[in-house]
Amino acid sequence: MILLVHGGREYLRAPGDELQTDLGVLDVPEDVSPGDVLETHLGEEFVVRAPRGPDLFNHFERTGAPMMPRDVGLIVGHTGAAAGDRVLDAGTGTGVLSAYLARLGAEVTTFERDPEFADVARENMDLAGVSDNVDVRTGDLTEELDDLSGFDLLTLDTGDAPEVVARAPDLLVSGGFLAVYSPFVENSHETVRTAREVGLSDVETLETIQREMDFGDRGSRPSTAGVGHTGYLTFARNE
Amino acid sequence: MILLVHGGREYLRAPGDELQTDLGVLDVPEDVSPGDVLETHLGEEFVVRAPRGPDLFNHFERTGAPMMPRDVGLIVGHTGAAAGDRVLDAGTGTGVLSAYLARLGAEVTTFERDPEFADVARENMDLAGVSDNVDVRTGDLTEELDDLSGFDLLTLDTGDAPEVVARAPDLLVSGGFLAVYSPFVENSHETVRTAREVGLSDVETLETIQREMDFGDRGSRPSTAGVGHTGYLTFARNE
Amino acid sequence: MILLVHGGREYLRAPGDELQTDLGVLDVPEDVSPGDVLETHLGEEFVVRAPRGPDLFNHFERTGAPMMPRDVGLIVGHTGAAAGDRVLDAGTGTGVLSAYLARLGAEVTTFERDPEFADVARENMDLAGVSDNVDVRTGDLTEELDDLSGFDLLTLDTGDAPEVVARAPDLLVSGGFLAVYSPFVENSHETVRTAREVGLSDVETLETIQREMDFGDRGSRPSTAGVGHTGYLTFARNE
Amino acid sequence: MILLVHGGREYLRAPGDELQTDLGVLDVPEDVSPGDVLETHLGEEFVVRAPRGPDLFNHFERTGAPMMPRDVGLIVGHTGAAAGDRVLDAGTGTGVLSAYLARLGAEVTTFERDPEFADVARENMDLAGVSDNVDVRTGDLTEELDDLSGFDLLTLDTGDAPEVVARAPDLLVSGGFLAVYSPFVENSHETVRTAREVGLSDVETLETIQREMDFGDRGSRPSTAGVGHTGYLTFARNE
Repeated sequence: MILLVHGGREYLRAPGDELQTDLGVLDVPEDVSPGDVLETHLGEEFVVRAPRGPDLFNHFERTGAPMMPRDVGLIVGHTGAAAGDRVLDAGTGTGVLSAYLARLGAEVTTFERDPEFADVARENMDLAGVSDNVDVRTGDLTEELDDLSGFDLLTLDTGDAPEVVARAPDLLVSGGFLAVYSPFVENSHETVRTAREVGLSDVETLETIQREMDFGDRGSRPSTAGVGHTGYLTFARNE
Repeated sequence: MILLVHGGREYLRAPGDELQTDLGVLDVPEDVSPGDVLETHLGEEFVVRAPRGPDLFNHFERTGAPMMPRDVGLIVGHTGAAAGDRVLDAGTGTGVLSAYLARLGAEVTTFERDPEFADVARENMDLAGVSDNVDVRTGDLTEELDDLSGFDLLTLDTGDAPEVVARAPDLLVSGGFLAVYSPFVENSHETVRTAREVGLSDVETLETIQREMDFGDRGSRPSTAGVGHTGYLTFARNE
Repeated sequence: MILLVHGGREYLRAPGDELQTDLGVLDVPEDVSPGDVLETHLGEEFVVRAPRGPDLFNHFERTGAPMMPRDVGLIVGHTGAAAGDRVLDAGTGTGVLSAYLARLGAEVTTFERDPEFADVARENMDLAGVSDNVDVRTGDLTEELDDLSGFDLLTLDTGDAPEVVARAPDLLVSGGFLAVYSPFVENSHETVRTAREVGLSDVETLETIQREMDFGDRGSRPSTAGVGHTGYLTFARNE
Repeated sequence: MILLVHGGREYLRAPGDELQTDLGVLDVPEDVSPGDVLETHLGEEFVVRAPRGPDLFNHFERTGAPMMPRDVGLIVGHTGAAAGDRVLDAGTGTGVLSAYLARLGAEVTTFERDPEFADVARENMDLAGVSDNVDVRTGDLTEELDDLSGFDLLTLDTGDAPEVVARAPDLLVSGGFLAVYSPFVENSHETVRTAREVGLSDVETLETIQREMDFGDRGSRPSTAGVGHTGYLTFARNE
């Protein structure tokens, strides 16, 4: 997929697609490349871009509040998610975390309980061009635990995360990481308690407050707008 | 490189290396794989692990305070750094950011002014197993700007970042991202001013406060230890 | 002044006043006391309350964004403002800080440059019942510095605070405190530089982030609403 | 009580006391006043100061971690504590909150369960010169609730605060405030639940993060030292 950009407008299309807007009709060549400039039949120009992670937030269909870039990033930073990682994920939702991880070369198996949400997530993986790297399974991870193992990374964004955490030592390779996202203190506490009970190491729950800085004519200051809480991130590692 | 782990001790070694400790001598086979269990001549067992991003903090030689996992992660999250990205970096330092980006499949060209620091960074890239993906150049990026272009991502951790930012439109592809790390308000402000002047879009400076949660017998609370400021992150995008 | 409260409605009135609403007419007796219950001619009851600091935010006429309860409180906490203190204040504005300080027994002299704002502030002091303790002067404190001295506390919320800070050693008694409120980093920095130059001690600038906690059915978490920056508070003490 | 200050050294003494240090002997006159300069028999000068709230932290004997100036201040700011208030307090501890409130003209009745702590608190009230305004009672407030009423402010820093909160409507006047300090989420939640159940209004729990700013030669930034969590403050108001 490529992005067609004209001023503040952008469209996600596949090579060979047609774009119809009030700026005219544009046929996307099969051999289109980022950096190309394409013209509509009315002579309007579109720049071709490779879509990046943050672009996904504009083009994914949402089935709930997607995980924010900061939280996706913190998971990557604190677990060292990297190319070649085998990732087990639950609570696919919109699929932003799965897509980000796939874009950096990980192989992701992700469980979504709601069949309609799972369908949307599959379409989103197509849009992100990572369908080959993300296996969206419709179902409940807690019922499939016996058949899964050998993952480098276990990422959970579900209310019943502690049930899965209890099995993390069987799911993860030695040195593999667990990352659990939860908006709530109690749920994070339960995750920590379980992680400690099953012998995971380096268990920690982090809370992140992020603010924008305003640089104006009168001076510099943190934004008066405020940035609210998203979720706690609990990390742990398999021995 | 692989990690040899015994209890709380771990050693980074290449296949074919020898490990000598008080637990005995261990020859690392050429075909060693993560998950293997190796024995020293005294019968002590070591588990073999693939090193991950956070392990680099334990094994890299430091030439200054390395960028923290959270800041590395935020750069990934907010720029969508991914496999195949061409990254231009300045202020290599210990090389943590370069190594993380290379581990997720990016091709990194990084500039370090101090020749000794650059040598250490090259050794660190060897340790991380990413020498093929990271080109550590000894020198000042501001003097090489005319010969560089076509990058997807420009990451700067230097006091003269604004000078480079002024050239970002020539260095970055359309849709490419800039990320500047600075501990200071004034320097971040100068970066923002420059980014706006040269027409970058989506310019924002973010400050991140991260705290650990304590879950104890008496209840849950944010840590009384406190987590200090690391740096502001300024992001911007090339039109 | 007393508050007349009926359900979610409240009115600030003086003894002897008349209250006319759709609930009927109510004559406030001259000897009214907090805790009394008064009836309108239609038989509707109003409870009589003594107004407290937070009530002032509902009843003061505003001439700009008033200082928030948290910042007023931090000034009290960090300077130990107390009964009998002589306070010199500049940038009266709505007058919330002056009224709070007067309510805890301080004698406040406050300067407001804008004559209309000063008039409103005087009316607000009447509403708060502290006119005897607050002298609202129309004018620029920087032009009156030669005639002032012997204050226990100097509180400034003006852009030219550093000019006044430069004279703080002459204005304050030994051990007296300075508190400067400023939204901006640069202005706070200038205040700190000046405070150090003129030999004040215990110079520090504090930034405060305050968040509400949400306790809901699904669990506890910091509010997703976020609370923005108000201002930096710089404190210093006269030797 | 007055403070005798010489350089970085300070001593709290009553009029008529004698001060003996290596700087010589000094007799404090009965009619000593802040601003006086006294000499020891060796001719060393001491400046006389009226002690202020923050000085109490240096001179109080501690029976645990005292409440910090910021939290004391926030209680004042959010409840409008003022001269003439009748305050009911539990968990006296070192007595900093009681002393601050008394210094701004409130009448405080405070309960401390530990008899030795209560004795220390009484001595601290003497040091602060507020013994007439603070009644330190040895005992458990939860056992005395039937005999108490008519308070403007109820301040609690005890693990069983919710038990007292359940009776707040009987303890407080109409419009009176409750302020509960607790380090823990669970305890704060229980306080909130109870406050709502008994019909208090404006129930909110606030968390405060305070950081110092560093203004150095290289620029301005929040301190790298970090400031940890102290406690949650829950406020509510009696209808």
